[in-house]
Amino acid sequence: MRTAFYISDGTAITSEAFGHALLSLFPIEFNHQTIPFVETIEKALEVKEQINKVCARSNEPAVVFHTFVNNDIREIIASCDGVIYNFLEQFVAPLEKQLGMKAQPKAHKMYSIHENSYDYRIEAVNYALANDDGTKVTNFDDADVILVGVSRSGKTPSSLYLALQYGIKAANYPFTDEDMDDLSIPNFLKPYKKKLFGLTIDAQRLIDIRDNRMSNSKYASPRQCRMEIREVEKLYKKEKIPFINTTKFSVEEITARILSETGLQRCKY
Amino acid sequence: MRTAFYISDGTAITSEAFGHALLSLFPIEFNHQTIPFVETIEKALEVKEQINKVCARSNEPAVVFHTFVNNDIREIIASCDGVIYNFLEQFVAPLEKQLGMKAQPKAHKMYSIHENSYDYRIEAVNYALANDDGTKVTNFDDADVILVGVSRSGKTPSSLYLALQYGIKAANYPFTDEDMDDLSIPNFLKPYKKKLFGLTIDAQRLIDIRDNRMSNSKYASPRQCRMEIREVEKLYKKEKIPFINTTKFSVEEITARILSETGLQRCKY
Repeated sequence: MRTAFYISDGTAITSEAFGHALLSLFPIEFNHQTIPFVETIEKALEVKEQINKVCARSNEPAVVFHTFVNNDIREIIASCDGVIYNFLEQFVAPLEKQLGMKAQPKAHKMYSIHENSYDYRIEAVNYALANDDGTKVTNFDDADVILVGVSRSGKTPSSLYLALQYGIKAANYPFTDEDMDDLSIPNFLKPYKKKLFGLTIDAQRLIDIRDNRMSNSKYASPRQCRMEIREVEKLYKKEKIPFINTTKFSVEEITARILSETGLQRCKY
Repeated sequence: MRTAFYISDGTAITSEAFGHALLSLFPIEFNHQTIPFVETIEKALEVKEQINKVCARSNEPAVVFHTFVNNDIREIIASCDGVIYNFLEQFVAPLEKQLGMKAQPKAHKMYSIHENSYDYRIEAVNYALANDDGTKVTNFDDADVILVGVSRSGKTPSSLYLALQYGIKAANYPFTDEDMDDLSIPNFLKPYKKKLFGLTIDAQRLIDIRDNRMSNSKYASPRQCRMEIREVEKLYKKEKIPFINTTKFSVEEITARILSETGLQRCKY
């Protein structure tokens, strides 16, 4: 199997995003290796050795994705036996021309602490944890969005991702069995109706997930799962609550769709 | 202010990572606009209109970062009045040559559900929540890593990010005031010593964070904060627990360093 290296003087998150986006276009498997924080000449020489060893063991050279802005380190990595893909290189010159100024590369700037965005995100994580699954006295006033849905439809991971990735405060409220007799928006949520965003999920997927947690329970029974989903979808439609079906979506897709449909602005770019 | 668009038929996370990495090299502000899920000709035409309006209002054309693989949509976007940067274009041909095969573009493949990685991550999020701040009976057997540190040193956001981003199960245990008289590794953690990873933080930063939460408390007092940090750092050194100071690091940097220093393998690429 061919090896793909993702290397950076920072977290290597950008090199990974760049390399994965490209490699995902090809229907083959790679052995992925991420090497972050290559900040010194010594470390760069070590990494070069490591790449060369991998290349020597294989009859196909490794592919190497990097974003180094330091010339000395870049040259060392560029002299390895792997095939180098550096996306900054290709785009910096045209952007300099367009923007009418020289780039001012600083090492690992991309995922370091921005003035306020870090605090925003930590605050949003704390908010999501304190307002998760409607179990505690919930502060809906501060919510940017309130995710609703049946148990195990994806509310908690989505609210945490919204917090960590975008600094958005997402509360969440689960509709339970007791809500189902005559499902409506609970009174305490009515003042916040405009913040509600519904999640739903295919019945079979919900049955599988719940059965995994509580086998042979009423909670996981096909009848219960189908009824709950039917009721919440009816409610979403009746009350015109925007909603998405999470069955086939990753947490990135769910949250990107929530942002897109609500027009919520992220706190960090 | 110049506008930067990030557009995709998927989440646009890759376009954002690509565009931000480039724009962060320039010392100017941009008005950022992300438009995900541009999946149809109609939507592409709307987006083109939107870009053209922004360009017409400004004397500088918008910069447009995209990763479209569908030719029809790409051509529509490419015909807008903004300046187009499509990083796939520049790299696909060289990679095809290197890998000896044609790329097989599929729309929004990058952040869609991979076979098993989604479940891994949700399971890891549930694990992190159930094993947060040592409050419940904790299942350390299943932990990939156990973050330790004083209250508010970054354990919870880091464990959630490890789960959501990498599918890694991180438990966390806070050292409290009561632990401080004779700080040592608690007996129940001793069997897991190899999984421990310490976080520390500068005293002044800790004082500020705690004061924000509980003003004028012993918990937030300079003397208490300094003592706790001194004691945990002494413990880390004595017990050879690897540790990092989180003061100047974002959650991305903290978790990338944890992965790098522990050699933990992420469950998803």
